[in-house]
Amino acid sequence: MHANTQTVASDPSLAFQKVRNQTRKLIEGLSAEDLCVQSMPDASPGKWHLAHTTWFFEVMLLQPFAGQAPLNANWLYLFNSYYEALGERHPRPQRGLLTRPSLDEVLAYRETVESRVLAFLDALEPDSATGRDALAVLELGMNHEQQHQELLVTDLKHLLSRNALQPAWRSPSPRGVNPEPLPPAEWLTHETAGPVEIGASNTSFAFDNERPRHRTWLEPYALASRPVSCAEYIEFIDAGGYRDPRWWLSDGWSTVQSEDWSTPLYWRNDGGIWLRFSNRGTVPVDPSEPICHLSYYEADAYARFRDARLPTEAEWEQLIGRQEWNGEFADSGRLEPEPLTGRSFGGNVWEWTQSPYAPYPGFKPLPGAAGEYNGKFMCSQMVLRGGSCATPRNHIRSSYRNFFPPTARWQFCGLRLAKDIP
Amino acid sequence: MHANTQTVASDPSLAFQKVRNQTRKLIEGLSAEDLCVQSMPDASPGKWHLAHTTWFFEVMLLQPFAGQAPLNANWLYLFNSYYEALGERHPRPQRGLLTRPSLDEVLAYRETVESRVLAFLDALEPDSATGRDALAVLELGMNHEQQHQELLVTDLKHLLSRNALQPAWRSPSPRGVNPEPLPPAEWLTHETAGPVEIGASNTSFAFDNERPRHRTWLEPYALASRPVSCAEYIEFIDAGGYRDPRWWLSDGWSTVQSEDWSTPLYWRNDGGIWLRFSNRGTVPVDPSEPICHLSYYEADAYARFRDARLPTEAEWEQLIGRQEWNGEFADSGRLEPEPLTGRSFGGNVWEWTQSPYAPYPGFKPLPGAAGEYNGKFMCSQMVLRGGSCATPRNHIRSSYRNFFPPTARWQFCGLRLAKDIP
Amino acid sequence: MHANTQTVASDPSLAFQKVRNQTRKLIEGLSAEDLCVQSMPDASPGKWHLAHTTWFFEVMLLQPFAGQAPLNANWLYLFNSYYEALGERHPRPQRGLLTRPSLDEVLAYRETVESRVLAFLDALEPDSATGRDALAVLELGMNHEQQHQELLVTDLKHLLSRNALQPAWRSPSPRGVNPEPLPPAEWLTHETAGPVEIGASNTSFAFDNERPRHRTWLEPYALASRPVSCAEYIEFIDAGGYRDPRWWLSDGWSTVQSEDWSTPLYWRNDGGIWLRFSNRGTVPVDPSEPICHLSYYEADAYARFRDARLPTEAEWEQLIGRQEWNGEFADSGRLEPEPLTGRSFGGNVWEWTQSPYAPYPGFKPLPGAAGEYNGKFMCSQMVLRGGSCATPRNHIRSSYRNFFPPTARWQFCGLRLAKDIP
Amino acid sequence: MHANTQTVASDPSLAFQKVRNQTRKLIEGLSAEDLCVQSMPDASPGKWHLAHTTWFFEVMLLQPFAGQAPLNANWLYLFNSYYEALGERHPRPQRGLLTRPSLDEVLAYRETVESRVLAFLDALEPDSATGRDALAVLELGMNHEQQHQELLVTDLKHLLSRNALQPAWRSPSPRGVNPEPLPPAEWLTHETAGPVEIGASNTSFAFDNERPRHRTWLEPYALASRPVSCAEYIEFIDAGGYRDPRWWLSDGWSTVQSEDWSTPLYWRNDGGIWLRFSNRGTVPVDPSEPICHLSYYEADAYARFRDARLPTEAEWEQLIGRQEWNGEFADSGRLEPEPLTGRSFGGNVWEWTQSPYAPYPGFKPLPGAAGEYNGKFMCSQMVLRGGSCATPRNHIRSSYRNFFPPTARWQFCGLRLAKDIP
Repeated sequence: MHANTQTVASDPSLAFQKVRNQTRKLIEGLSAEDLCVQSMPDASPGKWHLAHTTWFFEVMLLQPFAGQAPLNANWLYLFNSYYEALGERHPRPQRGLLTRPSLDEVLAYRETVESRVLAFLDALEPDSATGRDALAVLELGMNHEQQHQELLVTDLKHLLSRNALQPAWRSPSPRGVNPEPLPPAEWLTHETAGPVEIGASNTSFAFDNERPRHRTWLEPYALASRPVSCAEYIEFIDAGGYRDPRWWLSDGWSTVQSEDWSTPLYWRNDGGIWLRFSNRGTVPVDPSEPICHLSYYEADAYARFRDARLPTEAEWEQLIGRQEWNGEFADSGRLEPEPLTGRSFGGNVWEWTQSPYAPYPGFKPLPGAAGEYNGKFMCSQMVLRGGSCATPRNHIRSSYRNFFPPTARWQFCGLRLAKDIP
Repeated sequence: MHANTQTVASDPSLAFQKVRNQTRKLIEGLSAEDLCVQSMPDASPGKWHLAHTTWFFEVMLLQPFAGQAPLNANWLYLFNSYYEALGERHPRPQRGLLTRPSLDEVLAYRETVESRVLAFLDALEPDSATGRDALAVLELGMNHEQQHQELLVTDLKHLLSRNALQPAWRSPSPRGVNPEPLPPAEWLTHETAGPVEIGASNTSFAFDNERPRHRTWLEPYALASRPVSCAEYIEFIDAGGYRDPRWWLSDGWSTVQSEDWSTPLYWRNDGGIWLRFSNRGTVPVDPSEPICHLSYYEADAYARFRDARLPTEAEWEQLIGRQEWNGEFADSGRLEPEPLTGRSFGGNVWEWTQSPYAPYPGFKPLPGAAGEYNGKFMCSQMVLRGGSCATPRNHIRSSYRNFFPPTARWQFCGLRLAKDIP
Repeated sequence: MHANTQTVASDPSLAFQKVRNQTRKLIEGLSAEDLCVQSMPDASPGKWHLAHTTWFFEVMLLQPFAGQAPLNANWLYLFNSYYEALGERHPRPQRGLLTRPSLDEVLAYRETVESRVLAFLDALEPDSATGRDALAVLELGMNHEQQHQELLVTDLKHLLSRNALQPAWRSPSPRGVNPEPLPPAEWLTHETAGPVEIGASNTSFAFDNERPRHRTWLEPYALASRPVSCAEYIEFIDAGGYRDPRWWLSDGWSTVQSEDWSTPLYWRNDGGIWLRFSNRGTVPVDPSEPICHLSYYEADAYARFRDARLPTEAEWEQLIGRQEWNGEFADSGRLEPEPLTGRSFGGNVWEWTQSPYAPYPGFKPLPGAAGEYNGKFMCSQMVLRGGSCATPRNHIRSSYRNFFPPTARWQFCGLRLAKDIP
Repeated sequence: MHANTQTVASDPSLAFQKVRNQTRKLIEGLSAEDLCVQSMPDASPGKWHLAHTTWFFEVMLLQPFAGQAPLNANWLYLFNSYYEALGERHPRPQRGLLTRPSLDEVLAYRETVESRVLAFLDALEPDSATGRDALAVLELGMNHEQQHQELLVTDLKHLLSRNALQPAWRSPSPRGVNPEPLPPAEWLTHETAGPVEIGASNTSFAFDNERPRHRTWLEPYALASRPVSCAEYIEFIDAGGYRDPRWWLSDGWSTVQSEDWSTPLYWRNDGGIWLRFSNRGTVPVDPSEPICHLSYYEADAYARFRDARLPTEAEWEQLIGRQEWNGEFADSGRLEPEPLTGRSFGGNVWEWTQSPYAPYPGFKPLPGAAGEYNGKFMCSQMVLRGGSCATPRNHIRSSYRNFFPPTARWQFCGLRLAKDIP
């Protein structure tokens, strides 16, 4: 059952506050400076995430449903992300120039908007037509904020990784230890050809891109029982995988050469020891961890190296979506992948699929500005499934479609192998 | 039945000569200078196409099957396109620097290799295992050359378009005239949900990316009975389509702004008259012509403007592939789209589909270097269907999958509308 | 007489403290965020200036003269600017990524190093050979810090200008008002051809690039009695100066077109009113102010428009250097140009000269790492003279040579007209 | 005495024909393809040089003095180089796209314009005011064409160097052989401080940038008796010169790193043997040859490595300009530097000076469009002196100022050492 929706249905104010508090908790130990700087055009400053997720409740909820003018008209321009329907916006690559408003002002902005939302919810008749529409927007806004929680973690990790001091920003709960070598993955199989149904039904919250639930045709296939581990990926590196064009898509090979890639992002080799930058600073690679911070090109090349392939998103949803999920999620606060011990489904690392991000048959975007949420990006991106160590557990589900360009590496992305059953 | 294969089966030498002669015919009236220059990294010089298509027969046919050393070892480096398995190659954006070898040397190279191929075919036992393999490579090489015939036309058109003199390079056969206004398109329908089979069977030549023939699930849908016309597209321009973010994918809108697009490629407006550059020089736009030289983004935006969408490639193949094709192909020598008069299927303009270029279920690339022909490009490109005025008629079929990045405009690309049937 | 040197000679500790305090005063009212961000590769974050000027005393003074190891070896890498002799360094365009060390840590670093320097000075025998060498380095470091004070002001102004909120960061002392129209400039003349001496003598502090004092030949010439005013420059704009290639150097004209320049930096026209961004926010242009934030190309084009030219640096030093200087300097804390009232020499705006930045005859760089201070930049830059509203009064002198590339506009740069006397 | 002017004065038609014939001779053995392609934005296609030098006589001579309309109005746009006063022009980086007009058409254009010029000269009264003005333009046009002869050679050399076949395009007269090791250079001295006169007098042809002849002050100095040799420069390479920031200007060091320079342009090391690309194909480096194809940064770094410096242009003109010139010029047709045997002045390689290209005191550009010839470029370039193996002997003189940006390497540029005499 879908925890988030349940809570929104039973106590919207409490659910809203929980999400907002979780954001606040994420930035503990971070300075105004850490939250102001943008390390690359793809990333945003933490402060921007804090403000943008608040802006969303102002322009999507308080303005249309409560007729409340925004607190500061200028900020609408600053904190709009890409909603063309909502007017011009501050250029994305310049989000890091916003030293004003200050972090303190943004935090105060968050508090004021939170109070307004809570007051609005107090006065809302949840069962009226307007009430239902407003609660739907509230839930969209909460899910939107949870997405930005994950981005805040990955953007901050990227920023700190660019600092020669390689600072740690978390002293998290002690992480798991795996003294046993990780056993090989098993193959889970789907053995009959025929139509299956995938996508979200209408009984609980889902993004518009997960709908409509629809039939698609599957041929027999098998998926690995866990993501690829670091030990396995190191075999690819050691076999010269980054220097052998056989394994690579044409665009991937060009990228390997132009970007001079020879390891996953954040990795380096120090005298034979593999190290990776993490939110605990630079640490040795644990062979049992799922491989992470791969681009689509690397995930795809690795699969070819193993004479396998990546799953389609339908295959993934049909076979992995129905397992009991047991991976690492953001709720632990560790915010890095945990070592694998055996079968693993959901969490830890997003899994690249071979499916380009495209509309489902019969897809209809949400009406109004919210319609730009997902549909505008259905080109030149690949679908990822399953959630990561930075995804809140109650944010994710088996029909969830994440998407990034094939070059993106700063998210927590790994892979699971697939193969045809002849 | 498939004309090309028939001919190869019955008289491979004749079929080979026909394709080679067709290439020679294409360059009539072009100077060594016209054929040497590269106008952008995406395009190649004509001379390069002439040499590369010959290189293909040397390294794929004569070397492995006849043990013949290539005529000039250096040229292998110059005229390899992207086959990593065949060694290093001259960088694509620098193909235009090759003033040596001269056009005359390349034409002589073509003749020598042609003689060698013909001598090889004379001695071949077509029904032996080796003979069958060799004929398969011959046919692949002929189809490869036909693809480059089309690229030669589009690359040359782009080159001449960049010349302020706007030169004409063809005085083609008189083109059709359509004195009647073009009637509106009709909707052709596929009304039952269920699996259909698409892809190429194994009975005649097809590229590896058209295989395996496989089942896919279709919901009810309708496709227009002809491509979109210039008159219809001008309504989009006049309605401010290029200035309205509502219609555009996010990447598309960025491209419109960064590239300052406000018309299809090669168009300009001279005092209210729409003109376009063609291989007959700059000519007025005929409202009945199919709209052409659109990027995927423009095709997609136009469809949204009409409250419609682009077809998937399966929808296209199921409904258009089975019609009798009646469009304009390269065989007429006109090499520009012809005005529409009513129902139109195949030819004239490639039709953008909403399908990203991806492997079919169970896809296996060809063994060896030929395996790089198609599979290496299955990322970040969109499928086009149907062939164009620059495609030889016997090169194309209903399962044929062309593919280009969503930004590409210099090919003869247009679109046909699709919609769901609820 | 040279105020700075006098103070260093009489009381080095006091002089040192004054410069350091002045830096601290400059950042009053700025947040850690304001001081962390880098708005363009040419600029540096305020925090970086604060640390780098302290680094200088550590590696140039305390380490070689007092044998004191640096406080933090990693920071040497972070805060080296360009001294190749002192090892590798953090890339300049990435200075804005340094959210750690924090501003507080950098301020503490400043205090510790200050204490160390003061303790070192207490123990120093000023008249020993080592003492004299150490005091020379101290004075170099103080002048170095004063240069970075000016950069801190201009870099911060640039940063805030990129913020859509256009924030003000100073509420400075009330500025002068000029109720009278500014009278036309007069021509000051140097009427005899012959050699003159320019450059710094050895009696007081000067940078190595001001030496040796040497002879150069001047022909008769005249210089304007004050810099060009905004009112005068607006005539150039109104006459279409930015659209007329006649006035521009070839590189300048390319830059005008590629950068789309149509006004000085920070200017915009709001319904016929000229506004400019300043450290008091956006304010109306005062016609009596000296024109400011021009590139060399604009200064040169304006001079041609007036059938005049820019001075050479020798002409400037000979004629303006000997006047009594009465312009605006950083000491007032206003940090923006003041309106002109008549003759004006020194301060307010740096004045572009037509002299490329080149070594004086017999130039010898300082020994050791300090030799990289100036000489490494003697290519592709132009000399500016006279100091600006952000230059400390006791930092500047008539032989002082500032230098920037001809495209630079974010410094306080204007011009004074020159002409030949036939 | 100045050979060129003499001839123009005594027989302008003959002088004109000689220059034109020399251009025609240069392109012997080159194909239409060789002359059509542009290998980088800095270079131009040979055909463009052929047309542009002809365009010059049309718009500067025939149109204003003979009232003759240009042969083809469109071509004015295509073949204008940078004369803003003469209207818009084809973008420089796209000159290589001009496959039309063809080489044959351009050669016919040259002939027609030559006939027109000769007919015009036949009818001219040389001693009238108009006659004198017209002959001055004729001489300017001839000198202009000679400059483009040199560029045609260097641009073609660059183009062929980019071809993996490394083709030779000249089988020139046998070159000199130097069996003896080259003796060390001597120091020629100028021992008295004081004013000297440099620049061109008004008695014969010179470019406007060589005027006015004027006084400048020189301190005592010495110049080497010949350019630096390859053997000497190899010592710099072997000593790690390209990896040692000590020797380099800041911009130079950045360029070395970003461009990955480790040798002069066109050099490579094949198993310990130094090879260079030349117009005779790839040949071994002769240690006695003057070092060539250096940027300013490399010339300057080499001089520092030798504890010396580059000359100023005044020093060069005063001491080298007055020697008897004995170097290699274009007249031999060899078009590559010749080995040195001892003292060498003029020819072989252009010599970088430390003088930025700036106007002489009292400089006045020519009136009209010709005023853009030189003055528009007086920024961010460095002066070279002496002429090269691709310079016609009668084109050059001791006051001649060539100029290129400090990064330029495709010209025949070397250096001569200078030092102060204390």
